[in-house]
Amino acid sequence: MAQHSGGRRVPGAPERPRSPDAVLGGGVGFSVAVVLPAGGTGERTGLQTPKQFCSLLNRPLISYTIQAFERVSWIGNIVVVVAQDNMAMMTDIIRRFRHRKARVVPGGSTRHRSIFSGVRALSEGESGAAPAKPDVVLIHDAVRPFVEEDFLFEIAMAAKENGAAGAIRPLVSTVIATKPEGFLDHSLERAKYRASEMPQGFRYDVINQAYQKCGHSDLEFGTECLLLALQYSGINAKLIEGPPTLWKVTYKRDLAAAESIIKEALCRSACVFTGASARATELALPLRKAMGVLDMELDVFPEVTGEASCLSKEWNFIQLSVHNSGLSEVEVTIRALEAADRSFLHPVVVVLVLLNASDCPSVSESWAVPAAIMELASAVRLRNILLYGVQLRRNEDPGSRGGSVERLAGLAATLIRDRNPVLAGQVLQA
Amino acid sequence: MAQHSGGRRVPGAPERPRSPDAVLGGGVGFSVAVVLPAGGTGERTGLQTPKQFCSLLNRPLISYTIQAFERVSWIGNIVVVVAQDNMAMMTDIIRRFRHRKARVVPGGSTRHRSIFSGVRALSEGESGAAPAKPDVVLIHDAVRPFVEEDFLFEIAMAAKENGAAGAIRPLVSTVIATKPEGFLDHSLERAKYRASEMPQGFRYDVINQAYQKCGHSDLEFGTECLLLALQYSGINAKLIEGPPTLWKVTYKRDLAAAESIIKEALCRSACVFTGASARATELALPLRKAMGVLDMELDVFPEVTGEASCLSKEWNFIQLSVHNSGLSEVEVTIRALEAADRSFLHPVVVVLVLLNASDCPSVSESWAVPAAIMELASAVRLRNILLYGVQLRRNEDPGSRGGSVERLAGLAATLIRDRNPVLAGQVLQA
Repeated sequence: MAQHSGGRRVPGAPERPRSPDAVLGGGVGFSVAVVLPAGGTGERTGLQTPKQFCSLLNRPLISYTIQAFERVSWIGNIVVVVAQDNMAMMTDIIRRFRHRKARVVPGGSTRHRSIFSGVRALSEGESGAAPAKPDVVLIHDAVRPFVEEDFLFEIAMAAKENGAAGAIRPLVSTVIATKPEGFLDHSLERAKYRASEMPQGFRYDVINQAYQKCGHSDLEFGTECLLLALQYSGINAKLIEGPPTLWKVTYKRDLAAAESIIKEALCRSACVFTGASARATELALPLRKAMGVLDMELDVFPEVTGEASCLSKEWNFIQLSVHNSGLSEVEVTIRALEAADRSFLHPVVVVLVLLNASDCPSVSESWAVPAAIMELASAVRLRNILLYGVQLRRNEDPGSRGGSVERLAGLAATLIRDRNPVLAGQVLQA
Repeated sequence: MAQHSGGRRVPGAPERPRSPDAVLGGGVGFSVAVVLPAGGTGERTGLQTPKQFCSLLNRPLISYTIQAFERVSWIGNIVVVVAQDNMAMMTDIIRRFRHRKARVVPGGSTRHRSIFSGVRALSEGESGAAPAKPDVVLIHDAVRPFVEEDFLFEIAMAAKENGAAGAIRPLVSTVIATKPEGFLDHSLERAKYRASEMPQGFRYDVINQAYQKCGHSDLEFGTECLLLALQYSGINAKLIEGPPTLWKVTYKRDLAAAESIIKEALCRSACVFTGASARATELALPLRKAMGVLDMELDVFPEVTGEASCLSKEWNFIQLSVHNSGLSEVEVTIRALEAADRSFLHPVVVVLVLLNASDCPSVSESWAVPAAIMELASAVRLRNILLYGVQLRRNEDPGSRGGSVERLAGLAATLIRDRNPVLAGQVLQA
């Protein structure tokens, strides 16, 4: 994600994978688990699918949120609470996107009952395992996928110290009190109030005790966990101002906003393979310059083998090939991507740039290669790799050479940004 | 706009254009003017350009907001208030997008001072004209472009009756009171409070008097016009719950959301011209069916002439042509669009579908037509018309014919939805 800081404040996080239940946190020094209530019906989006299950780039929103926690080394396990009807779907999402720290439990009829189910599940352990009650529980909304590690760290530390902590944000609008007949009574002094957001953190016993003591009416009509901690555990939560990225996907338009954030995070850079051709090698530098103007960084390598490090960090690849070499080079690149198992979280983009076509190619040349690209693209699309072609026409007029590299850069940047599966297999003209 | 109701509640609105200053409102029965404060610096978007001037589909956000008011027959004139530095740019926007009801005045150093400038300007009239103080003033944010006529009508009527009226929305988050040291004090009972949004409406004398009486501190630090009306004109505003479309473009992500709403409103339907070919005519029905599945309605006509009514309501055109007829048919369509002056508000999409290409075209056929499409597309793009080509390959296997129409529909729908200028002139393969 764009907002991921790489753990600036968690320098001690170990690199080797550890057993989720045993994590005591190289980063925080105590054990932290997460409850993600995901029982909402999403009626405000105006969509049939609850918004946490809506797909962005072929992957449900909730999987992005789970990933935001899973990548944090000091977070041990994640309990996702869903309606009974969605148990099978959620289990499948966890399997497909390989969320090894997450498990799913059935929720209750209200938000508080669902969170309580998640909190209880944390002390019960997984089937067969010994209970592993965490020191601190973070509670978050399934529809706030952009939460950052830094901020989770702040909340977890403040929860451990104070018993409870929660994210706040400034009020966006003036809050006004209304009279029963629908007239203005007064407006609140903005400086004294804040919007309560997620995530929130609690010492396990604080939130568990609050839920055990609270009454039917709290479980039925309440929404604010911090208030339960205050009323039933006597804890004044520490409030911490969070960044705008804590924002909650609420309406249909928010799905478009979330998708644009995800896409932008994926398109910052690309890896270029020049292959064996001198012309391709010569093109790499002007292309890097032209794409730099479009805010995309290029790393240039002769070929995929031996440079596999870029495979594990890049989502975008540009293969430069001379037209008559066919698809052999791009096939090598794609096989390497498949071997690196790169595309299960996000669609990977491969742009094949064909050089050296004359202005009047032979009939076989003009059709055979595009048809082969279309066929290869159809096959790899099933494995979440989006292959596009761009034909760079040889232009004998040196004055317009710059223009054609810029067009190539513009097309490649558009294909990488949009990640549009409908256009996979097309060969565009630069 | 998607949300435009076509004026369900304003049945008496006349159709002929009237002089802005003389409008007494076939719809409301009194004169209504608008003040749009647009002085914000947009620091929350994280962009250099203030958000009201950010471009969506090649047109600044504020122009969409102006249009939302301008299309309402009973709204007389619109005063846009901008920082002195932006006067020239705003004047140019009004000219380019032909906002005949709008004029621009310089604002003050705060939101209230700017609104007051706009209110004052309404009683001063335009240069040389007699003052034409409106009965009711609507105040709105430049960055809420999706306000609907229905709701403006409700606010205007309530303002006339009660002296002041404002839009409210339910609170999205729990509002909490904080202690000075950053701990939770208490949370507000959500049912009693609302977020105050825009638009708001006032009888002219109510808002004018409030601004004349209020003090330096109100003008400097206040934000809520309804509160001024209460304190200085003794008016309890009527509060009316508005739809989610009143939402305010605040962060960079909101620009993506706004663009997706605008694009969606433009891509509901398209007009198909079949030309003279029997094959094209035969294709029209299956294409209409396939695009219906993708939520896009098609209206089919033999040719553009004589059917000019669709030119004035459609933003999207699909021209079916046999490959060897060249571009003459699509050129006729484009000339008709230019004559109808259709593209000054939104980019118009023209998808040229080429039929009848054999699997092995001659060399001249395979290159000459795409090159001509690219050239034509470059020329018309300057006039905000986006031309794309789709080549429908002749497939001799009847079993796969359906598949190729579906691919055509998918490509046409994608081109129409995305309106991507970078892809203009490309010929895609269906």
